[in-house]
Amino acid sequence: MNKARIALLAAACLFATTALAGNSAKEEANKKLVTEFYEKVLNQKDVAAIDRYVGPYKQHNPMAPDGAEGLKGYIGYLKENSPQFKAEIKKVLADGDFVILHVHAVPAPGARGLAIVDIFKVANGKLVEHWDVIQEIPEKAANNNGMF
Amino acid sequence: MNKARIALLAAACLFATTALAGNSAKEEANKKLVTEFYEKVLNQKDVAAIDRYVGPYKQHNPMAPDGAEGLKGYIGYLKENSPQFKAEIKKVLADGDFVILHVHAVPAPGARGLAIVDIFKVANGKLVEHWDVIQEIPEKAANNNGMF
Repeated sequence: MNKARIALLAAACLFATTALAGNSAKEEANKKLVTEFYEKVLNQKDVAAIDRYVGPYKQHNPMAPDGAEGLKGYIGYLKENSPQFKAEIKKVLADGDFVILHVHAVPAPGARGLAIVDIFKVANGKLVEHWDVIQEIPEKAANNNGMF
Repeated sequence: MNKARIALLAAACLFATTALAGNSAKEEANKKLVTEFYEKVLNQKDVAAIDRYVGPYKQHNPMAPDGAEGLKGYIGYLKENSPQFKAEIKKVLADGDFVILHVHAVPAPGARGLAIVDIFKVANGKLVEHWDVIQEIPEKAANNNGMF
């Protein structure tokens, strides 16, 4: 092995470890997929876009029927009954196949709204499973830090 | 550079990339710290252990006063009023300084209980910031998947 080859091996090693030091390329791609889905589907309420982002979909939100069809029904309901519903993503975190969103959702401008954490599982470039926890933001709090 | 040295360099490179392919060493350490804290403080209600795990502590749970003292007060209250409170960690995820726990908490055996997501920020080996979202698990659900 000559010096040029050794330098190349060292550079490849450096690149691989640097790329993986924060999020891996897969985690970055998953974050991008989930945040795009959230903007397009939840905020723009584009029911037709759901099949682009969602595969066979296991739903754990107890209010929603299972599968992509259940999600389509929910977004259709939102569009009809809560057209001003807006979700602002406060944090995007990823670990392997999981993407976690910390979200402030308001049903209409000026409302205190809801604190939400969504967890999505991604497989083969599609969202395949979803869990969430939802809490109304209370009027008064025991500290001055806000919920986000 | 002889063959032995080249093999050593290649092995070191392989080790570094493998170690970082999932969680980094820091993320693994953060997961361990947070899950130990959760077991010791939330489940065993060991108020005296809090200072071992918690640094200057910014609290975003709207029910709890700010700081480590607020957390001590909350755990003391739990010990007194809800001694059978038990939190089962369902998922542990990490991204950089953040650790995310998906938790099923029950105030007493047999209760349906609460779905919780906790997000902790870790700095210098201590928990320094906390957000959570808490939802009562409903009696009936629109799907059969459960909340976890």
